[in-house]
Amino acid sequence: MASQPESSLPERPKDERDVEGAAPSKNALKKAAKEKEKAEKAAKRQQQEQAEKDKAAATDTAAHLYGPISYTSPTTPPGQYFEDLGDLNAAEENKKVTVQARVHSTRKQSAKLSFLVIGEGDHTIQAVVAEGGGQGISRQMVKWCGGINTESIVRITGLVKTPFEEIKSTSITKYELHVEEIFMVSGAPEQMPIQRKDCNQPPPGEEEGDVEKEGVINVGLKARLDNRVISLRAPAQQAIIDLQSEVSFLFAEYMRKHKFKLIQPSYMAGAATEGGAGVFEIKYFDTKAYLTQSPQFFKQMAIAGDMKRVCINGPVFRAENSNTKRHLTEFTGLDFEMTIMNHYHEVLSFGEKLMISIIRALQTREECQHLVNIVKKAGYPEAGNFQLPPGDEAVRITFAEAKKLLKESGYEVGEDEHKDIDTAQEKALGAIIAEKHRTDFYTIDKYPRTLRPFYTHPDPTNPALTNSYDFFMRGEEIMSGAQRLHNYSELCQSMRDKGLDPLSEGFKHYTDAFKFGCPPHGGGGLGLNRIVQYFLGLNNIREATLFPRDPGRLAP
Amino acid sequence: MASQPESSLPERPKDERDVEGAAPSKNALKKAAKEKEKAEKAAKRQQQEQAEKDKAAATDTAAHLYGPISYTSPTTPPGQYFEDLGDLNAAEENKKVTVQARVHSTRKQSAKLSFLVIGEGDHTIQAVVAEGGGQGISRQMVKWCGGINTESIVRITGLVKTPFEEIKSTSITKYELHVEEIFMVSGAPEQMPIQRKDCNQPPPGEEEGDVEKEGVINVGLKARLDNRVISLRAPAQQAIIDLQSEVSFLFAEYMRKHKFKLIQPSYMAGAATEGGAGVFEIKYFDTKAYLTQSPQFFKQMAIAGDMKRVCINGPVFRAENSNTKRHLTEFTGLDFEMTIMNHYHEVLSFGEKLMISIIRALQTREECQHLVNIVKKAGYPEAGNFQLPPGDEAVRITFAEAKKLLKESGYEVGEDEHKDIDTAQEKALGAIIAEKHRTDFYTIDKYPRTLRPFYTHPDPTNPALTNSYDFFMRGEEIMSGAQRLHNYSELCQSMRDKGLDPLSEGFKHYTDAFKFGCPPHGGGGLGLNRIVQYFLGLNNIREATLFPRDPGRLAP
Repeated sequence: MASQPESSLPERPKDERDVEGAAPSKNALKKAAKEKEKAEKAAKRQQQEQAEKDKAAATDTAAHLYGPISYTSPTTPPGQYFEDLGDLNAAEENKKVTVQARVHSTRKQSAKLSFLVIGEGDHTIQAVVAEGGGQGISRQMVKWCGGINTESIVRITGLVKTPFEEIKSTSITKYELHVEEIFMVSGAPEQMPIQRKDCNQPPPGEEEGDVEKEGVINVGLKARLDNRVISLRAPAQQAIIDLQSEVSFLFAEYMRKHKFKLIQPSYMAGAATEGGAGVFEIKYFDTKAYLTQSPQFFKQMAIAGDMKRVCINGPVFRAENSNTKRHLTEFTGLDFEMTIMNHYHEVLSFGEKLMISIIRALQTREECQHLVNIVKKAGYPEAGNFQLPPGDEAVRITFAEAKKLLKESGYEVGEDEHKDIDTAQEKALGAIIAEKHRTDFYTIDKYPRTLRPFYTHPDPTNPALTNSYDFFMRGEEIMSGAQRLHNYSELCQSMRDKGLDPLSEGFKHYTDAFKFGCPPHGGGGLGLNRIVQYFLGLNNIREATLFPRDPGRLAP
Repeated sequence: MASQPESSLPERPKDERDVEGAAPSKNALKKAAKEKEKAEKAAKRQQQEQAEKDKAAATDTAAHLYGPISYTSPTTPPGQYFEDLGDLNAAEENKKVTVQARVHSTRKQSAKLSFLVIGEGDHTIQAVVAEGGGQGISRQMVKWCGGINTESIVRITGLVKTPFEEIKSTSITKYELHVEEIFMVSGAPEQMPIQRKDCNQPPPGEEEGDVEKEGVINVGLKARLDNRVISLRAPAQQAIIDLQSEVSFLFAEYMRKHKFKLIQPSYMAGAATEGGAGVFEIKYFDTKAYLTQSPQFFKQMAIAGDMKRVCINGPVFRAENSNTKRHLTEFTGLDFEMTIMNHYHEVLSFGEKLMISIIRALQTREECQHLVNIVKKAGYPEAGNFQLPPGDEAVRITFAEAKKLLKESGYEVGEDEHKDIDTAQEKALGAIIAEKHRTDFYTIDKYPRTLRPFYTHPDPTNPALTNSYDFFMRGEEIMSGAQRLHNYSELCQSMRDKGLDPLSEGFKHYTDAFKFGCPPHGGGGLGLNRIVQYFLGLNNIREATLFPRDPGRLAP
């Protein structure tokens, strides 16, 4: 008799302290001792099981056809390998194939017959284990197969067969797999902390815990993130992360085509950049360093070094203690910076075209649409309905026009023309523009100087305004950008106007870069996670992040 | 008379303390006050100069054709824009063009005639300013042009003309530019801390300072890095960084083609990973966090979450106080991890093909070869001579074979078969293999268990060895990789064997990931900077890094 996979039963962490980095307590030491005892018991049990197995094997004529995989098993030659389960759709009937996949469910029909559903990604197929089938399947083998824990990974060699009738419960409907050999590659425990199938739909809104509705469990976001290796197996959750990967690749493709260089900034600096607020401090040997808040300074230095067009795909760190649905302490930035020949709208237009090109690709490339459909099918209400402007011509309004639109719709925007639009108003503006222009993507140009950082270039025709812009998707900001000050004395003056010292340790290396001639330039920083979040209409940025970090989360 | 560009004369930092993040001292405050005074004086001077200019303009009929650029200048319509100076090669004679470029040199031939060499990247062209030419060039304008500081950026509108004889001192030899208008976009000071032209050749070996040889100054590596925005303008230095960008793009292209997902790991973790040595500590609100030492755990968690094939292009942080030519505290990792169907050589072969594909592209794609040639022309002796194995079939030897080869060549490798090969021996091995197999790229397989980290999968046929490998270029390691332990209890046992506690805070989230079924998998982490360094045969990894970080450098 083959043994069940090894495992000490996993527990869901009891509270945050269990998860985050506390020092080992007495309890922890006790627990460790207990775990050790447990492990010893498990080893003993395994020995016993092995002995039983050996005994059973003596009477089980199929013993070599199943059980835990080892270096010497399987003993028979494999069938044709199918690395992607989905490719079985294109296999020929009666073909002998070998696949490695996860067990989604098992069903022991009788002592003579077991069924398994095995899957990979969003592809699933039924596997049949019948006594006397294959190379002589035994009852013991049928029983063992019917008892495999879900989430275990098995390796099956078998024949592709047309079932008596189309199978409705699997994605591959026209074929089933007649098992000849089945080996346990990696066992899952009987009890899982959460179930993959309970993580596919959008997580419950504000609720931290699980929600049950009409018998369907919906695992809360916190538990999904605590158990990321399980929730990630849910097709919709994986498709979201896969779409993030697509955006990264599309960004690289577009930037390369437009002669940008992908550069590597430094993420550690000797002084706190951009003013020092919201910067993480690092112990750096005998001194201190800081995680850079953005690659802004490095991009600009590359431009001053004549690199002309540079882009970055990398982490951005923000030590801001904000716990919202749209903020993280670490996110991925898609940054770019380019020289300007005549007018900063060269940069703004480039950014608009970049974003429209990426979104259009997400909507038209087959591999992307496949992923969007998985998310949509899982019940995410806004997935797949993102509107691009007619003719792919970006809708661009000024900050003043944005406020006017809001005012016309009855929003209180105040008399002060330098006052910012708040997040709720931004969202409302998104709805107004979607209604008026049939687009969920648009840009706002010409922000007041008071609202932008010191390195922003003023509007030469109106010094109260700047040559700066934000990009929006569904009324949420996904990028901030501007022409930058490239003239050393103007930059220093702008810093002094904002109460900053251009010659301080934190700024000297940056301002120095502009002393030796620097071309006019501008750029922007896109938030990768937000692009995915708002393209799909996800409620929380954490859903669009593989391993999110916020003030309360540093693991897994 | 148009004024010279603004600038307070730059100084080269006097010592390290000036550069790195010390707290503002009394001296610094005094200095700031002085700077302020200086700035005020400069402003006053500027006013005076403006007044003088206004006066001169009254008598200078060409005053609108040159001088500092402003929002309202130039006043005449521009010629056709040429964003890339190199494109002028393909322009038609007599075409009116507008370019923005850096001044490489100026020469006042006479009161009536000045020459400029302007450049962008490795393209340069001669510009001619002749009295009476264009729209009526004045003597004042000729004089002003002849006095422009090198490294200033100018905007020129003029006519493309064939010179009397081919110009030998510029890259564009068949054309010169007859200036009609010239405006100062961004001024450089008269005195630069280092000269661009003195940074093009390989920096002096071990020397920190500059070296002068036969009248040619060669700026030392430290000064080059301290003044990165200037040294980066040297064509060879920029080509090195551009090649790094090419490798990043080639990596993305290859991985996408092979169905890898580009994921974003987290770079901050609640506990020190991989044992805690060499990890930077972060102040994380009221608690502590750590910069991850590698994306290893995140890649593996993604695999446990069924992502199947993942890759990463991102920073790697190492708090190791080593000051060598091949170590940095921050470098860029090109990581990948993939599931294994049958044998870990699937991963090893994939990695070999990936590297050969990247190097082959660097050697054959026109844009890459152009960059390699710039480096070669600058005097880097090994640039362009990298050998790939015949037929692009990777040369792969075992660790035992590597030691045998060394022994045969007279190297002392010791009797202990678990003893590592040291760096010097690795380098010697590179020469032996290059001699024997005509390749500068090869891989070594099957390292002893004692030499590899706890998560490495042992060789099932010989538990003293592991399913692990390193990649080498010119005898220097550029990648370390292996099959990983995917079985929870085997992983825990391996950790205990190495004296680590799998249930400790630092490891729990990692080990937990393997409790719920994980496919066999393996991968590796390539060092982007090292790939560029050894492909070109650069002496120091800092040459292949845009903004290097080491125990003594945190800026710029």
